[in-house]
Amino acid sequence: MGKVRVESFSISLDGYGAGAGQDLANPMGAGVEDLHGWAMTTPTFRRMVFGQDGGAQGVDEDFAQRGFRNIGAWILGRNMFGPVRGPWPNLDWRGWWGENPPYHVPIFVLTHFPREPLVMEGDNVFQFVTGGIHEALRLAQAAAGDKDVRIGGGVQTIREYLAEGLIDEVHLAVSPVLVGQGEHLLAGLDLPKLGYKVAQHVQGVATHVVLTKG
Amino acid sequence: MGKVRVESFSISLDGYGAGAGQDLANPMGAGVEDLHGWAMTTPTFRRMVFGQDGGAQGVDEDFAQRGFRNIGAWILGRNMFGPVRGPWPNLDWRGWWGENPPYHVPIFVLTHFPREPLVMEGDNVFQFVTGGIHEALRLAQAAAGDKDVRIGGGVQTIREYLAEGLIDEVHLAVSPVLVGQGEHLLAGLDLPKLGYKVAQHVQGVATHVVLTKG
Repeated sequence: MGKVRVESFSISLDGYGAGAGQDLANPMGAGVEDLHGWAMTTPTFRRMVFGQDGGAQGVDEDFAQRGFRNIGAWILGRNMFGPVRGPWPNLDWRGWWGENPPYHVPIFVLTHFPREPLVMEGDNVFQFVTGGIHEALRLAQAAAGDKDVRIGGGVQTIREYLAEGLIDEVHLAVSPVLVGQGEHLLAGLDLPKLGYKVAQHVQGVATHVVLTKG
Repeated sequence: MGKVRVESFSISLDGYGAGAGQDLANPMGAGVEDLHGWAMTTPTFRRMVFGQDGGAQGVDEDFAQRGFRNIGAWILGRNMFGPVRGPWPNLDWRGWWGENPPYHVPIFVLTHFPREPLVMEGDNVFQFVTGGIHEALRLAQAAAGDKDVRIGGGVQTIREYLAEGLIDEVHLAVSPVLVGQGEHLLAGLDLPKLGYKVAQHVQGVATHVVLTKG
């Protein structure tokens, strides 16, 4: 069985992974404009987010690329799939990514509200899991086979998996910005007690940190 | 009037400036063995802490040196002065640093319990201030003249001065370690709202970050 990984997850110097007041216009909340600045210097994310060429090779791009290697399935918290809260009012919302999302493997979306699988272009199939984080992980690992499962976020989803010690490896990109309020990634989580240690620490535009468990 | 500065203050990747369970044997609390690892690579801190030669030139040493430049007075929280809590039982405790502490300028110690000034070798005079953080800052700035005031810590003292927006510049050394529990430096402080921004971000053994206000 593969690993369970978090990759290219940006946090601020003061530890926030998302700002306050998330909505459709600000899916990451307020004050986070520069949180992903490092990613926007990389060819990988420029192509994915803007469909643009350009960007720089180097440490940041290496980490961006690494995050997509050997991934057999994704898990997303519902808020990463979209801004809709509560029961699905209709099936209009099909994600932030257009008709051909950048995953190209099965994606499992955590939600309390059942919904039929959403089949999109490019081998993107979104499945909606109401059975909780363990159930989503079982399904994702079955779908991934020998490959790894990437937990995309958001903050709350990663915190829940960390608290259960279910993540093998976390790549954090600590961006040189302050956010001030919002969702704190690590507050109240005792990572050493959970078995995590710092395995790598490299400077690019962001400071890239890899935490491993055990 | 000079600036009010925090210098060479180490925090962990998960944001802790001190561990849990501080006592005489563990003045910084548990789990913080490597928090100051970067400082122990610098000639400045090796000389100061161990009285030893050696250490490496470079980014870390530059920041260590910078922290002692143009300082006219220090402010310390009482726990940085020593492990004694409550009323002073006697005057036996004279700090962690031997008879010639590394300050060589007036040092103002925040405490709730009056004590006569403590005059030590090397122009080290500790004055005990019971009037609160504003009073200590007034006294320190008067003593420093045109020079800067350095706020040495600990975490709680820095948080109180930050919350009042009284610090002009903060150099944090983000060490590549996890602490897991203890005193969090920035939790609940909205630094952007308080006027702070990231002015510098440089990688040495630690990631050095300089925050400035306004």
